[in-house]
Amino acid sequence: MNVESKSFAIGRIPITKTWPSVDGGLFPAKAFSGEVIEFGAIAFREGHDAIAVDLLLTDPKGKTQRIAMHPGRPGLDQWLTKVQLTEVGTYSYQISAWDDEFATWLHNTEVKLKAGVDQELMMLEGQRLLGKMAVAYPKQKKDLIRFAELLTAKAPKEAFEDAMAQGLVDLASATPLRSLETLSESRLVYCERTLAGSGSWYEFFPRSEGAQKDKTGKVMSGNFKTAVASLDRVKQMGFDVLYLPPVHPIGTAHKKGKNNTLDASEADPGSPWAIGNTAGGHDTIHPDLGTEKDFKDFVKAANKLGIEVAMDLALQASPDHPWVKTNPEWFTTRADGSIAYAENPPKKYQDIYPINFDNDPEGIYQEVLRVVRKWISFGVLIFRVDNPHTKPVSFWQRLITEVNAKNPEVIFLAEAFTRPAMMHALGKAGFQQSYCYFAWRNHKDELSSYLKELSQDSADFFRPALWVNTPDILTEYLQFGGKPAFKIRATIAATAGATWGMYSGFELYESVARPGAEENIDNEKYEYKFRDFEGALKAGNSLAPRITLLNQIRKENPALRQLRNLVVHHSDDSEILVYSKHLTAEHAEGKENTVIVVVNTDPHSVRESMVHLDLQALNVAPGFKVTDLITGASYTWGEHNFVRLDAFTEPAHVLRIER
Amino acid sequence: MNVESKSFAIGRIPITKTWPSVDGGLFPAKAFSGEVIEFGAIAFREGHDAIAVDLLLTDPKGKTQRIAMHPGRPGLDQWLTKVQLTEVGTYSYQISAWDDEFATWLHNTEVKLKAGVDQELMMLEGQRLLGKMAVAYPKQKKDLIRFAELLTAKAPKEAFEDAMAQGLVDLASATPLRSLETLSESRLVYCERTLAGSGSWYEFFPRSEGAQKDKTGKVMSGNFKTAVASLDRVKQMGFDVLYLPPVHPIGTAHKKGKNNTLDASEADPGSPWAIGNTAGGHDTIHPDLGTEKDFKDFVKAANKLGIEVAMDLALQASPDHPWVKTNPEWFTTRADGSIAYAENPPKKYQDIYPINFDNDPEGIYQEVLRVVRKWISFGVLIFRVDNPHTKPVSFWQRLITEVNAKNPEVIFLAEAFTRPAMMHALGKAGFQQSYCYFAWRNHKDELSSYLKELSQDSADFFRPALWVNTPDILTEYLQFGGKPAFKIRATIAATAGATWGMYSGFELYESVARPGAEENIDNEKYEYKFRDFEGALKAGNSLAPRITLLNQIRKENPALRQLRNLVVHHSDDSEILVYSKHLTAEHAEGKENTVIVVVNTDPHSVRESMVHLDLQALNVAPGFKVTDLITGASYTWGEHNFVRLDAFTEPAHVLRIER
Repeated sequence: MNVESKSFAIGRIPITKTWPSVDGGLFPAKAFSGEVIEFGAIAFREGHDAIAVDLLLTDPKGKTQRIAMHPGRPGLDQWLTKVQLTEVGTYSYQISAWDDEFATWLHNTEVKLKAGVDQELMMLEGQRLLGKMAVAYPKQKKDLIRFAELLTAKAPKEAFEDAMAQGLVDLASATPLRSLETLSESRLVYCERTLAGSGSWYEFFPRSEGAQKDKTGKVMSGNFKTAVASLDRVKQMGFDVLYLPPVHPIGTAHKKGKNNTLDASEADPGSPWAIGNTAGGHDTIHPDLGTEKDFKDFVKAANKLGIEVAMDLALQASPDHPWVKTNPEWFTTRADGSIAYAENPPKKYQDIYPINFDNDPEGIYQEVLRVVRKWISFGVLIFRVDNPHTKPVSFWQRLITEVNAKNPEVIFLAEAFTRPAMMHALGKAGFQQSYCYFAWRNHKDELSSYLKELSQDSADFFRPALWVNTPDILTEYLQFGGKPAFKIRATIAATAGATWGMYSGFELYESVARPGAEENIDNEKYEYKFRDFEGALKAGNSLAPRITLLNQIRKENPALRQLRNLVVHHSDDSEILVYSKHLTAEHAEGKENTVIVVVNTDPHSVRESMVHLDLQALNVAPGFKVTDLITGASYTWGEHNFVRLDAFTEPAHVLRIER
Repeated sequence: MNVESKSFAIGRIPITKTWPSVDGGLFPAKAFSGEVIEFGAIAFREGHDAIAVDLLLTDPKGKTQRIAMHPGRPGLDQWLTKVQLTEVGTYSYQISAWDDEFATWLHNTEVKLKAGVDQELMMLEGQRLLGKMAVAYPKQKKDLIRFAELLTAKAPKEAFEDAMAQGLVDLASATPLRSLETLSESRLVYCERTLAGSGSWYEFFPRSEGAQKDKTGKVMSGNFKTAVASLDRVKQMGFDVLYLPPVHPIGTAHKKGKNNTLDASEADPGSPWAIGNTAGGHDTIHPDLGTEKDFKDFVKAANKLGIEVAMDLALQASPDHPWVKTNPEWFTTRADGSIAYAENPPKKYQDIYPINFDNDPEGIYQEVLRVVRKWISFGVLIFRVDNPHTKPVSFWQRLITEVNAKNPEVIFLAEAFTRPAMMHALGKAGFQQSYCYFAWRNHKDELSSYLKELSQDSADFFRPALWVNTPDILTEYLQFGGKPAFKIRATIAATAGATWGMYSGFELYESVARPGAEENIDNEKYEYKFRDFEGALKAGNSLAPRITLLNQIRKENPALRQLRNLVVHHSDDSEILVYSKHLTAEHAEGKENTVIVVVNTDPHSVRESMVHLDLQALNVAPGFKVTDLITGASYTWGEHNFVRLDAFTEPAHVLRIER
């Protein structure tokens, strides 16, 4: 084998790494409209001469911009720049590195004039260089020649000072020779709409919203008509997205009763994730919830309030699902001729038939595509995909790619809690965002490292949604942390996460678990819930005002709506977590925006600590003013600051730097 | 732009990473003949079913082997295997991941039989699976059918136990269905000869070897004839390679005198790195050293002793070099018409003209290729390249690639001490090995992290040569550490480095620096040295016996001649460094080989400490026997061991585990 043909040809000026980049360019990096992305390269040359490095960024319309990059920390040969991407579509970029002859001459001249060495020679060298520029830039020829003559018009030091005072550097910047220019390979950045990476989500079960119980205990299900009234509650708290668990007919075979029991009664509504019965399957609205028109009207009503509706896509069937009859080949037939239900041996889940994606991959793919497109035509632009890690990754890549090709506005959220290789592969396959392990990262150290991982290591391909709870997840921290735990978690999720979310009932501090399970007792998955949001609010037993405030703070502080700008700072206490998010004025609608969050992650204590800030990351000098966006209090802060955070009253500072 | 066509298509069973890999496959990974390489992949599938993962390794002759991989640590979806590469040339590999239906069935059957669930059904499922195998493997059909029948011949538990006892697992391993097989991209590993990655090197100046001073102080230069006698000294110490500084005519213009002074006399020999005068340039032997025939004879004499000769390739010229007249375009002409000498403004090096690689890149390239090939024809197969980081990386890539295409046995060593981006790029460009920062990593913590970096992070593209000193480098540690420092450094270099080296005089503890410089006073670069190796040996003032022992230990312990198998262990003391190197019997000529090195890195103290070993990395149980290869003493060791190391007598244990 010929090795020569197998090695990458290193350019005249080596550019050995560029970013953002996912798996060496196998996948485009992710961005969302409004996101600020660091573009970088490792570029260097032999010897001592200077190089310049530029980003050549081509937007989705094909227009290319040349942006000068600046050197990173000494010794690493990094070149960096930050750009805010705005247009939805695919950007491409290349790095250009070139011999900066003017910078080399300028440096050597300054050194030699100071040392009194080669003074005349350096003026002649400058003259020769400006002459080369004059040939390359006919428009600036006159100016360049004037400067060239200036360099030998007087004694060298004086001539040089004159030229500098008259703007030689600016002129030379405008007339770069760019000799030895070397271009990197081209890389892609796929920029999606803002909600793909930044937003606040709320989940409710429409069957509970407006459900009524009569005196006999008989329940009238809530439906899309009654649920419209609940949209105001969601709006008032400031959420962008309302996610609905499956809205399809629910299977009757092996239907689950209250608390996941096996002896459900007629009255039990069943788990909405056991999809399909004789009324229909994934393409059908549950008759209890109303008609297709009711659903469309509900989506429209939400949109009118500025709320998008996300639908569940749970690819599995109840034994009553129409697919079982029409396409038994989409399931696994066992050696005894029966259809295989879900199992994790020896556990059995007889109410669920998993789909077998290998018997008729094309047939099942086309059916799922049909279902997804049906709901898109109903105005649904967001799908929360249930357990995507139990289906082939290649299936998702094909589906998301094809859906996005026609509808780039459609967002898929992966509900996967599994090993990192699978979590990350789903992101690379195209999922716009992913549930993550945030719910189980509760204390300072684990949060510090996890937030760093999410905002830096994996941000090019994995967009985390920081959910504080779900119908499946009521963590021990929430079970045993009392009301302070709920306040702490909401504050961190809303400020650390570009995307955060919560499931209905969180604002009521619902914290009792089904024994032995990490989820709520009397779980809404198996029954109707009757929650008195108004009453709790009046009694002062609701977190809703805090949630409203947090979403308000997010809206007013664009830095908080970014993923990649999170910086963790140091504190002396083992539970005082400190992080900040910063945006330059250029990237924050003209007004520099910096928020520092200091949280006591121990819901059982009052903590005092010194907090040590990296002022460079905040672009601020000691003695700066901050306003606490929770209490309204003002402080003057510096590099080292004292805090006292009482989990029982107020566990967090959310401080905006006043400029 | 169409995003669809730009994303890598994820396979049915995702394989998201494979190694070894350099920059996502842009460059082949490096290996040397005899090196043990870990091949790995991240591969996983949806749901709970089992997969199997194989390495498909194709040797340079085109023969492909399928090697089963084993899972790595839980949760990481890593699959691993170690292979010892032996043939020089380019290997390629792919990873194959497939649905392991038999493993899935076996696991489920064991669980269900234990739980008393689906027992008959699982036997039927097994029967169906064996039937499928029988179709795929006609040769084993009879056996497979027999086992299939066995599964339903008795009650399930009993039938299953029978089948297991009769070898069902072995049969199934031999008849894998490999459904859903997915192949990774192909990657290359370039395997070079052993000395490219593993060996011990010695440097001397031939002009000093046999040089004689008469009573008037006049010196008769040593030469290739007199230097032949010194080969025995090199051989006795056990070195594989003898590296010679440049052997070409030395320039007279601006010739350097003793201690780098500017007023050299006729009698001063000058620096051999100021290459070229009227007698010739890079293609010429210095007349003082003899004729081309003398040089050839010297190389042959060395080879006869099993020593290879490495030549210097220093691409620069003295002002007297023939190139200056024949090809002035290979240098830089300044604005005043003069040729530019080397500078680091305001410092001037007027005895050296650097080559300008951009004026006539093709001309200079062909000339260098001619020079290199001339010396190859003289039997030189190793070139130590002086300051490669001041020449274009692309030049080296082209040169090394073209030379190796015809002469894959030729080795280039990069003498670059600079920023990591350049050091690493030179390795990727093709340099077989590189000087590194070992000389300046002297204490436990810095050695621990640097040895980890060298043996793990960068081993695929950067092969470090651990030199204890050079004519340019006499570190503060050696200047001020006394004899213990020399012993400590030699011991670490010889055991931690697959390649190590030293410059003549190290064995005599030469430790006086030129004031203000990090190199020896009365440096051999500018004068002849008259060293009494024999006398020092007799007086007990020579490190030569220790060096001989260290090279002997290397020869007897193949684990020490590997780069990637170094594991750092913990000690309680801040200066007690502990590392081990291990090879399985399969990779060490049939005899498992493990060496543990414990060194006191403080040359001024006696230290006592507990040493805590990772026994898994040593493949040993507590209570194992070790022999100290330095003292011959035997110990019984376990996980936690006491050591006492006296820098003034013996600063190190080099312990071989006795099996």
